Amino acid sequence: MRVTISGGVHGNELTGIYLVRKLRHDTPLTHNINLDFLLANPKAIEACRRYIDKDLNRSFSTHALERDSHLYEEERAKVIANRLRGCDFLIDMHSTTANMGITLVLSTQDKRSENLAKILASEYEDVRILQWFGSEEGDFINTLVPSSVTIEVGPVCQGVLEPEIFWRTYKVLRRAIEVLDKDEWTSDPHLAYRIEGYEDFPRKNGKLWGMIHPELKGRDYGQLHPGDPIFLTLDEEEIFYHGDPCVPVFINEAAYYEKKIAFCKAKPVEI
Amino acid sequence: MRVTISGGVHGNELTGIYLVRKLRHDTPLTHNINLDFLLANPKAIEACRRYIDKDLNRSFSTHALERDSHLYEEERAKVIANRLRGCDFLIDMHSTTANMGITLVLSTQDKRSENLAKILASEYEDVRILQWFGSEEGDFINTLVPSSVTIEVGPVCQGVLEPEIFWRTYKVLRRAIEVLDKDEWTSDPHLAYRIEGYEDFPRKNGKLWGMIHPELKGRDYGQLHPGDPIFLTLDEEEIFYHGDPCVPVFINEAAYYEKKIAFCKAKPVEI
Repeated sequence: MRVTISGGVHGNELTGIYLVRKLRHDTPLTHNINLDFLLANPKAIEACRRYIDKDLNRSFSTHALERDSHLYEEERAKVIANRLRGCDFLIDMHSTTANMGITLVLSTQDKRSENLAKILASEYEDVRILQWFGSEEGDFINTLVPSSVTIEVGPVCQGVLEPEIFWRTYKVLRRAIEVLDKDEWTSDPHLAYRIEGYEDFPRKNGKLWGMIHPELKGRDYGQLHPGDPIFLTLDEEEIFYHGDPCVPVFINEAAYYEKKIAFCKAKPVEI
Repeated sequence: MRVTISGGVHGNELTGIYLVRKLRHDTPLTHNINLDFLLANPKAIEACRRYIDKDLNRSFSTHALERDSHLYEEERAKVIANRLRGCDFLIDMHSTTANMGITLVLSTQDKRSENLAKILASEYEDVRILQWFGSEEGDFINTLVPSSVTIEVGPVCQGVLEPEIFWRTYKVLRRAIEVLDKDEWTSDPHLAYRIEGYEDFPRKNGKLWGMIHPELKGRDYGQLHPGDPIFLTLDEEEIFYHGDPCVPVFINEAAYYEKKIAFCKAKPVEI
């Protein structure tokens, strides 16, 4: 089985980039899997920016992969699609400014991906499973491979290496490699969360005019009920939540301001 | 007296940008000063990046202001120099990923700047004064005006509005405007810190190969002694401090990785 570990799909998420550099330099011995390492967006890594022309992790739809493009990331996506031909399992490393702990994002419902996520989540207290079945903006890198787990860790600022998060993630990643190498399986069900919607920031004439409410800040994976405060406008007005009860995730993720996402709304499910 | 409040010299430091937007919309009444607001780097603000071509806040040396340039920030610096002609006092708003609280950076030793900083630092527990008399990279925006205070607030990630930091800074900024408007003066001395050197991250073949040690993380304005751990390499080796005792500041500031600064070394002084 061929397993690829990628970092730097977003060039300013240093945790994943340096985990790949460390593992390349100090590769774990495996018996049944072939490990391959990928720094996905070299130009963005060099510039320490999320992307050069567009979000690489929204550039993998068949349409984008087939057309000629003047955008760096759309050309890079084609190179990566070629590189990942024959890859059986992808572990894609990301970080977030939100208080997400170690979140294993599943963007498909295949057994092998779910199995790895369930084993890791059952062994580590700070590891959670989140299902996110795609974005209207374009397809994730995960759509190129039969099985995958995206590891999102936070809170950590863009452009920063944070020691505790780095070494905690390293431990989980080493265990993930071991599970795949030993072909361990579990039949136990596990709690997961599924993203079902998004909430935008308050705006005035289309421009951002508020921020996350102090009471919602850092409360990723908590409970959000109608009437709870979610935003504070620049006029110091509190804004309260009106939707169905949900579990907020990716609260105040820097890269989602431009996507008009202040937080994502998830529901608990059993997988 | 003409007072300019600027934000967005760095386009991804949202605290200052939104403080300027709020104050433009909801301008405090003043009797003796004229307030002017400046969003300094519009293209970088639009892109939510620190800069487009080079750091604007290192682009104000006479040499840079006089030569023709193909760099956006060097052209923008000329426009700002013109705009700040006749400005008596500049308050320039920044944010940092380091745990700097509210730091008033003084880059000159003039009485009016020191006076404002001393009044604010004496009234608020989380406000400190830091002297930083310039960078070899190029001159700060402050060199354009006779008096100025740079307000650096953190920890806050690039590209993020953080509610507590925003409103704490807003309070201090409103008080700064009041002090200037009422022309209040103090003759009391106050503790300040002066930046006297820099420490780079561990590197291997010139490339970053380590991170801030967990024991140094967030310890801005603490005491650093020879033998204290400062870095952890990717090989899990601890690196200890060898220099003179100092007060570390701007520990793990995202924007300083490219400047080869892991933290700045300061000394306490009385002003």
